[in-house]
Amino acid sequence: MSNSTPQEPQFDPQLLDSIKIVLCQTSHPGNIGAAARAMKTMGLKHLVLVKPKDFPSEEAMVRSSGALDVLENAQVVETVEEALADCRLIIGTSSRNRALPWPLIEPREMGELIKEQKEARPVAIMFGRESTGLLNEELQLCHYHVNIPANPEYMSLNLASAVQLVAYEIRLASKITAESVGEDSHSIDGDSDYSSTHGVEADLEHDKDSEQLASFEEVDGLYNHLESAMNKTDFYNPEQPKLLPARIRRILAKARLNKGEVNILRGFLSSIDKYIKRHVK
Amino acid sequence: MSNSTPQEPQFDPQLLDSIKIVLCQTSHPGNIGAAARAMKTMGLKHLVLVKPKDFPSEEAMVRSSGALDVLENAQVVETVEEALADCRLIIGTSSRNRALPWPLIEPREMGELIKEQKEARPVAIMFGRESTGLLNEELQLCHYHVNIPANPEYMSLNLASAVQLVAYEIRLASKITAESVGEDSHSIDGDSDYSSTHGVEADLEHDKDSEQLASFEEVDGLYNHLESAMNKTDFYNPEQPKLLPARIRRILAKARLNKGEVNILRGFLSSIDKYIKRHVK
Repeated sequence: MSNSTPQEPQFDPQLLDSIKIVLCQTSHPGNIGAAARAMKTMGLKHLVLVKPKDFPSEEAMVRSSGALDVLENAQVVETVEEALADCRLIIGTSSRNRALPWPLIEPREMGELIKEQKEARPVAIMFGRESTGLLNEELQLCHYHVNIPANPEYMSLNLASAVQLVAYEIRLASKITAESVGEDSHSIDGDSDYSSTHGVEADLEHDKDSEQLASFEEVDGLYNHLESAMNKTDFYNPEQPKLLPARIRRILAKARLNKGEVNILRGFLSSIDKYIKRHVK
Repeated sequence: MSNSTPQEPQFDPQLLDSIKIVLCQTSHPGNIGAAARAMKTMGLKHLVLVKPKDFPSEEAMVRSSGALDVLENAQVVETVEEALADCRLIIGTSSRNRALPWPLIEPREMGELIKEQKEARPVAIMFGRESTGLLNEELQLCHYHVNIPANPEYMSLNLASAVQLVAYEIRLASKITAESVGEDSHSIDGDSDYSSTHGVEADLEHDKDSEQLASFEEVDGLYNHLESAMNKTDFYNPEQPKLLPARIRRILAKARLNKGEVNILRGFLSSIDKYIKRHVK
């Protein structure tokens, strides 16, 4: 708080530019427009629409109230996988009540995470349908679920309002403060620790690329390969998946694999495929 | 974020009940309805309308999306002075106004202030006209001005969105026990509705133990099993381990597997062993 005229705070444009707001199967075009407006007020630019019911639309343009650039640049895709392909941190909006425990954060923690995990960009934040939110299969593609603390007797938060709150926390996280100037990005895989205690520094040096966090597409490819291997070895029956796919997805979400690790695991899975080819006719 | 069994966070009802949202000369009844909805999602009840252009109105009821109680109990007054009469802390929403140096806070500080200054209740938070905001005369009735940090190139925050952000910060400020933040931010809680519709309640019940973090011994057993499988499929040559063991260990370290997850992965590895036994010589 200050009595004198305050200085305009500065906001980190890289952080704001690294955020994709992903709206899944939005029914009402007005909500898409209002979401674009909410995004722009907080300095967010990248809107991705998965199978919108009605877009482009006049109503969306009207409700966007001048945030037309966000609408015009919106990417429209058929599947969630397309929307997330190049993202390294995936956060899904969710109510608290889910079948399988998943890392759950509040919008404020979400902002901190996005600020700290500079290596995990671009970041996708997924919003579900007006009526039913995100499907479990969609939620299982996320590293974290974010829950907006709402009145348990009345959770009816408008889609654009949810986007507004999330965008607001991201904007606050992007504020450049004295402390955040020259702050290092925190590596969540504890790499430097690891390498120094295990003397693999050299390797990690000339292997920078493999140390880069894997993209959604890469991890999703690993998941599908793993599922098919589990199927071949009769461990997994796609007819009766039960909670297995969710549990596997959650393991991958927690592991935050880098490219090299994805390659190792895929190499192992390929060796199973080859082994089966070689030995089984 | 944590994986312990959650409890719903508690919110201070006195604090929430002490807040009056005051909308000055709102032009569009839809915004009044949307504001009522935004208030109710965050547990706020008291709406005061100063000279609304069109109220009560059908459109307000529609846009309130079920927050009719807030609309029905709304107090409609002729002057700002009437609206503020019994309030002990008055906060006006304002863009940064260099012409009028005034104690200027951000929504987050506003929440803290309201939480701390228990003696200063009821609290009024004033919102201005869609077009022009609060007049200087109105701003001068305030103890503080609250500024929502917005994109300087696009400040067009919708009235209901502004109410939503302010109400959200008030709700967070009303949360009881700062410690519980994070501890209880986790996902399975007894939403029998959800669970029963997804038929996983039982599974989760007798599965509590599997959610417990795996011991070193369990993870180490998994590692050894994985190594031997990799050896059998000729992916891994113990004669020339290179960095593979270190990388696998690191993946397991990052994953922080629970008992159930270790069992799943060991089950998969066993299925490889059995498959090989069945199909080879």
